[in-house]
Amino acid sequence: MTAVSFEYNIDVSWGDCDPAGIIYYPNYFNWFDATFHAFLKSRNLDQRILEQKLGTLGTGLIDVGASFKAPITYGDLLSISLTLGSWSDKTLRLAYEGHCNGSTVIVGHELRGLFMRDHNTGKISAASIKPLRALIEA
Amino acid sequence: MTAVSFEYNIDVSWGDCDPAGIIYYPNYFNWFDATFHAFLKSRNLDQRILEQKLGTLGTGLIDVGASFKAPITYGDLLSISLTLGSWSDKTLRLAYEGHCNGSTVIVGHELRGLFMRDHNTGKISAASIKPLRALIEA
Amino acid sequence: MTAVSFEYNIDVSWGDCDPAGIIYYPNYFNWFDATFHAFLKSRNLDQRILEQKLGTLGTGLIDVGASFKAPITYGDLLSISLTLGSWSDKTLRLAYEGHCNGSTVIVGHELRGLFMRDHNTGKISAASIKPLRALIEA
Amino acid sequence: MTAVSFEYNIDVSWGDCDPAGIIYYPNYFNWFDATFHAFLKSRNLDQRILEQKLGTLGTGLIDVGASFKAPITYGDLLSISLTLGSWSDKTLRLAYEGHCNGSTVIVGHELRGLFMRDHNTGKISAASIKPLRALIEA
Repeated sequence: MTAVSFEYNIDVSWGDCDPAGIIYYPNYFNWFDATFHAFLKSRNLDQRILEQKLGTLGTGLIDVGASFKAPITYGDLLSISLTLGSWSDKTLRLAYEGHCNGSTVIVGHELRGLFMRDHNTGKISAASIKPLRALIEA
Repeated sequence: MTAVSFEYNIDVSWGDCDPAGIIYYPNYFNWFDATFHAFLKSRNLDQRILEQKLGTLGTGLIDVGASFKAPITYGDLLSISLTLGSWSDKTLRLAYEGHCNGSTVIVGHELRGLFMRDHNTGKISAASIKPLRALIEA
Repeated sequence: MTAVSFEYNIDVSWGDCDPAGIIYYPNYFNWFDATFHAFLKSRNLDQRILEQKLGTLGTGLIDVGASFKAPITYGDLLSISLTLGSWSDKTLRLAYEGHCNGSTVIVGHELRGLFMRDHNTGKISAASIKPLRALIEA
Repeated sequence: MTAVSFEYNIDVSWGDCDPAGIIYYPNYFNWFDATFHAFLKSRNLDQRILEQKLGTLGTGLIDVGASFKAPITYGDLLSISLTLGSWSDKTLRLAYEGHCNGSTVIVGHELRGLFMRDHNTGKISAASIKPLRALIEA
């Protein structure tokens, strides 16, 4: 099976940058998250549809990380590629790379689970992720 | 003279929304700001170039406002149009309208000045905006 | 009846500022919103409790605006005061003032409604705000 | 030598949460960053002072990561503790833990460098971090 990948582009804006004139780093995670949700939408599987189909609360985060390779600034065009990595019983690993002007500027990952709310206790916990895998691989 | 206008599109994402499932309103101002900076960039007049040409610190805000006409949510496509309004000696008024699925969802404005830092006192204040007008109308 | 007011303090941080070194303006609306929600919480009336008591989706925005009086930067302490203004059948007007080092740096307002979702159509609209007024004035 | 640590508190607000009603995860990195800058400020070493003393552009990120242990929501009080970890020639490792109601909700780290701009090329790169270490340990 070939790797599933998806691309999302961001025009880095003035307000995305800090007083050093470079991207304020938490914004990269906004864009990782937006890339993942745009991927789901491209498969007609947004959170609303997952909630209807699977009764889930959302595809939340278990672990996340990133390494910053080069600073970029407003006016730059950032292209983020998402690659679906490995699945475990309760997790999906997503690999991200951000490119700008032919250079890699960030490499990161998200480990996501499929969260449900227990209607008795109100507690949120990770359920089996197999139903999501089945929908994505359909 | 015909009105100068510019359009900027936003894929509203999961993270742009609040627990009510609709856009968390401060995000609209991120997008107004991003629209204005994208407009400047489209004229090859971003803040870096304005700093070089005019010695300015940036095109900062004097007044801003918005009326919310209808709530929208993740998965929606928001299209923001900017129209250059009136100029005074020190200000430029920008009108914004956001549309989604054929409806107007937000109407707003920004009143911007051209800010400079006094090198003796360190104070920031609004300078004449005529040099910016000349560049935009060139 | 004396005016109801409430104060909220923000340590302006590096990441709140733009490449000009001053607050990126949409952040002020994050803080207006946070001030209002902290006020509700101080009255034991957060959105969760309002949802339970009134069946509402949230206290959303109808109109908002602000005038910027002076730029401030990271390291500054911003104190925002909220004052409950006038009520109409469907709206509550809130007045905000931000102070720093004894100067007024921002003056703004929010016009809020009490939003409900129609369970038949799924549409969100503003309901009577009287039940919220009764709870706040209790 | 005992570990250097610092604590920063956040009132989690409505606007910090996503449609699932829990914290939108990139906000945790805003708070890690704000905690670090509040720590520097507590030592009278903010970016402005470091720029004056060391000629640096800022204390930027090389690597960052976090594991999410439990979801929290608006109305919760999040307490983030920062602990200064190991120094290398060009990096400082910071460990973060977030607590809420006696539970650990997030464990993370930042690897930071001291960035300078080369005045000939305009390029930004990590310099020796020893001058920062000397100031912090003074």
